[in-house]
Amino acid sequence: MKQYKVGLVGIGTVGTEMIKVLRERKFPCSEIRVLATRDRDQEIAGETFHVRETKAEAFDGLDIVLFAGTEGAKGASKLWGWEAVKRGAVVIDNSADFRQDDRVPLVIPEINAEALDKHQGFIAVPNCSTIITLMGLAPLIRAVPVKHFTAVTFQSVSGAGHKAIDELAAEVKAYQGEEIIAYEPTAFADQIAFNVIPQIGGEKADMPGYTSEEAKMLIESRKILGLPDIKVSCTCVRVPVFYAHSIAIHAQFAQPMTPEMARDIIRKSPGVKLVDDLASGLIPMPIHAGHTDDVQVGRIRIDPCVENGLALFCSGDNIRKGAALNAVQIAEALIQRNLI
Amino acid sequence: MKQYKVGLVGIGTVGTEMIKVLRERKFPCSEIRVLATRDRDQEIAGETFHVRETKAEAFDGLDIVLFAGTEGAKGASKLWGWEAVKRGAVVIDNSADFRQDDRVPLVIPEINAEALDKHQGFIAVPNCSTIITLMGLAPLIRAVPVKHFTAVTFQSVSGAGHKAIDELAAEVKAYQGEEIIAYEPTAFADQIAFNVIPQIGGEKADMPGYTSEEAKMLIESRKILGLPDIKVSCTCVRVPVFYAHSIAIHAQFAQPMTPEMARDIIRKSPGVKLVDDLASGLIPMPIHAGHTDDVQVGRIRIDPCVENGLALFCSGDNIRKGAALNAVQIAEALIQRNLI
Repeated sequence: MKQYKVGLVGIGTVGTEMIKVLRERKFPCSEIRVLATRDRDQEIAGETFHVRETKAEAFDGLDIVLFAGTEGAKGASKLWGWEAVKRGAVVIDNSADFRQDDRVPLVIPEINAEALDKHQGFIAVPNCSTIITLMGLAPLIRAVPVKHFTAVTFQSVSGAGHKAIDELAAEVKAYQGEEIIAYEPTAFADQIAFNVIPQIGGEKADMPGYTSEEAKMLIESRKILGLPDIKVSCTCVRVPVFYAHSIAIHAQFAQPMTPEMARDIIRKSPGVKLVDDLASGLIPMPIHAGHTDDVQVGRIRIDPCVENGLALFCSGDNIRKGAALNAVQIAEALIQRNLI
Repeated sequence: MKQYKVGLVGIGTVGTEMIKVLRERKFPCSEIRVLATRDRDQEIAGETFHVRETKAEAFDGLDIVLFAGTEGAKGASKLWGWEAVKRGAVVIDNSADFRQDDRVPLVIPEINAEALDKHQGFIAVPNCSTIITLMGLAPLIRAVPVKHFTAVTFQSVSGAGHKAIDELAAEVKAYQGEEIIAYEPTAFADQIAFNVIPQIGGEKADMPGYTSEEAKMLIESRKILGLPDIKVSCTCVRVPVFYAHSIAIHAQFAQPMTPEMARDIIRKSPGVKLVDDLASGLIPMPIHAGHTDDVQVGRIRIDPCVENGLALFCSGDNIRKGAALNAVQIAEALIQRNLI
């Protein structure tokens, strides 16, 4: 089997997880070359890497470059992405910077791997909330067209990186009685422990009242599903959970989509796990979905508000399926489809 | 001014808050008679009460009886409610047992105080999530009819009583690193710290897939708004927050309801506070709404999914406006309308 030389730019929460996922899945790589701001030796996910400074020549000889796209590595794919392509690599970018670029397929392999077929060397990983929502919803949409859906998210702090994870932990440790003592938030604008913050990202200039995170759900869903007219409404909320995002989805289908049909489809779909027995307390939850690969789907029921309405609830690990795992799966799909 | 003899049955989270609210608002009472399972002297909210055992004669002479309706007092209004009415009191019941009873008005004073006018001595307080949702939504619906709305809740643990508050605190104290150490949940079926639980209550027999808590949003909204045909869909989720429930609402109106119109209405409505400036980070949040009377309303924006769609986000203290305060406000409205 061919072995690939894999580059990784950025070693925050997502970058570290990318190394774990490559190793766990025994991705066929003869080299993992870690690039960051400066040269040094560093232990990452239990291995010592000679981290190299990110510069044009550092991409030479690589077959695949993963851009982690968060924290320290923000903007790296803007600076170096097409340079890496020019030097012969296929780029898989977890940042938000190229998701709307017409040259760049936006891919969840279980849903639209075929979008890889015409790639131009640069592929984007969708936003974590979009991935987890569509993992549950897209298989249903493939069976019966959807008119619109509403997604209300419960997003974990790990989506905002190491600093945010540390901040929730610190706030919780500072907790005495019912007030946070002597802790000033810096990763979030407000205390996240024992709170929910219904704002992720700034206001989107062309969508008054919507945050950038909420806009992603609409814009990315349209591109991934190949449905430029689908209507999507979204409220994104940060919750005091470490790992796994959850999404309450209410959708209107164009024809009947019964809970039984939906359960049957989810049961047969890859990458999702049906966790749906209210009477037994089997419901999707971040504490169970975190640190696992599958997106849990449950609470499937009729939405009585609209004709052919269906409600469901998904929980999935935002760092794994929402980012690192999805990126590695794209690399695997490229190999499988002889596109690299 | 006439002074009333007020009875209180149950001294859990809500009962204790009822005493606080009566004192804070200087409710005109010559007596607060606390009834519970057995006779004893007990300090409640900084005052020592001679708690009496709940029995028929204990209601004699009372003008108003508040049933706290949670924890130890569950089922008390079923046993003693109409007995108290027979003995001359007006009952204000926070339990879920009589909310659908045709003899019983279901009242949020800011929204449907007129429902009190034909009371038969027994009035019910709606469920906390319904109150907080309708405080934000009903003023808009009064201006422009609504076709349907979807409510996704972020409910605090205090809605499940003292034991649940203690459980979240204990889980958080048991927290070491990222796992809960040596703590077995009892108030909830699963760990609530660093988790969200998308199930509150058991499955509603006549609404497959829906929990009892979700059914309340539909059934109670219809009765309070006097709109028996309004369509409501709801996902109720417990979150690791101590006080204040939050609700993401997506509504379709029958005619245009612009964000500007909605903000103007909220600004002029009693009991709600417009907290709506995304650019300045002014958003409703439980840490700010908790322990206050007003329901915060914000994130008002167009919902592009449907014609005349509007999205908003509310946070309000479930123990105060969601229960104790609303009950005392009902008593105040009865006095104001000369109905007692």
